[in-house]
Amino acid sequence: MKIVSLDQVEKNVVNMEGATGAWKQIPLGSKDNAPVYAYRVFTVEPGGNTPFHSHPYEHMNYVIDGRGVLVNKNGEETPIQTGDFALVDPNEKHQYRNTGDKPFIMICGVPKEFE
Amino acid sequence: MKIVSLDQVEKNVVNMEGATGAWKQIPLGSKDNAPVYAYRVFTVEPGGNTPFHSHPYEHMNYVIDGRGVLVNKNGEETPIQTGDFALVDPNEKHQYRNTGDKPFIMICGVPKEFE
Repeated sequence: MKIVSLDQVEKNVVNMEGATGAWKQIPLGSKDNAPVYAYRVFTVEPGGNTPFHSHPYEHMNYVIDGRGVLVNKNGEETPIQTGDFALVDPNEKHQYRNTGDKPFIMICGVPKEFE
Repeated sequence: MKIVSLDQVEKNVVNMEGATGAWKQIPLGSKDNAPVYAYRVFTVEPGGNTPFHSHPYEHMNYVIDGRGVLVNKNGEETPIQTGDFALVDPNEKHQYRNTGDKPFIMICGVPKEFE
């Protein structure tokens, strides 16, 4: 059993190409012997975004705070905000953009091999 | 890709023995073709609790709102509140109790076979 608050978790800038103003934390994952999944948290600054990309694994998101859009493979934007859940399928091109005036903070769960 | 808000998701009372004032939703899971994991949400009313039990799979929690305790196998209580993450290991006996004066709402992710 492990209990952890987000403010106790190391926070690192996302250096991936195409990412702007994005930060990553891993509150629960391999280091905790999580058997299957890892919970990462991304914080995107106002005006920032995650890369417009795809990968062979899905992710399951929960928006902890903020307002943004989730961009699909065709570049179409769907608003997403505090309290919303999203599933991005394996190999589906996507991007998160913060369209609000405060940090956009979301859980991004993935199979632990890809944390 | 799927985006859903919690208030759009069917909510059912938890009829499991030992559960009191607990409700379940499944915002993302098998019905959405989630490949690996399912995100369930449990809402526990003030004074309510989940069963004191164990199961062969882990769960990974995030407290969306409220204040409670997570009870371990020895009956020891650890406070847990909005913004906290918890990992409960496979076969580890545990219970959530709402000790606050408003609903205790948490994500409870599990391998989708056990949603």
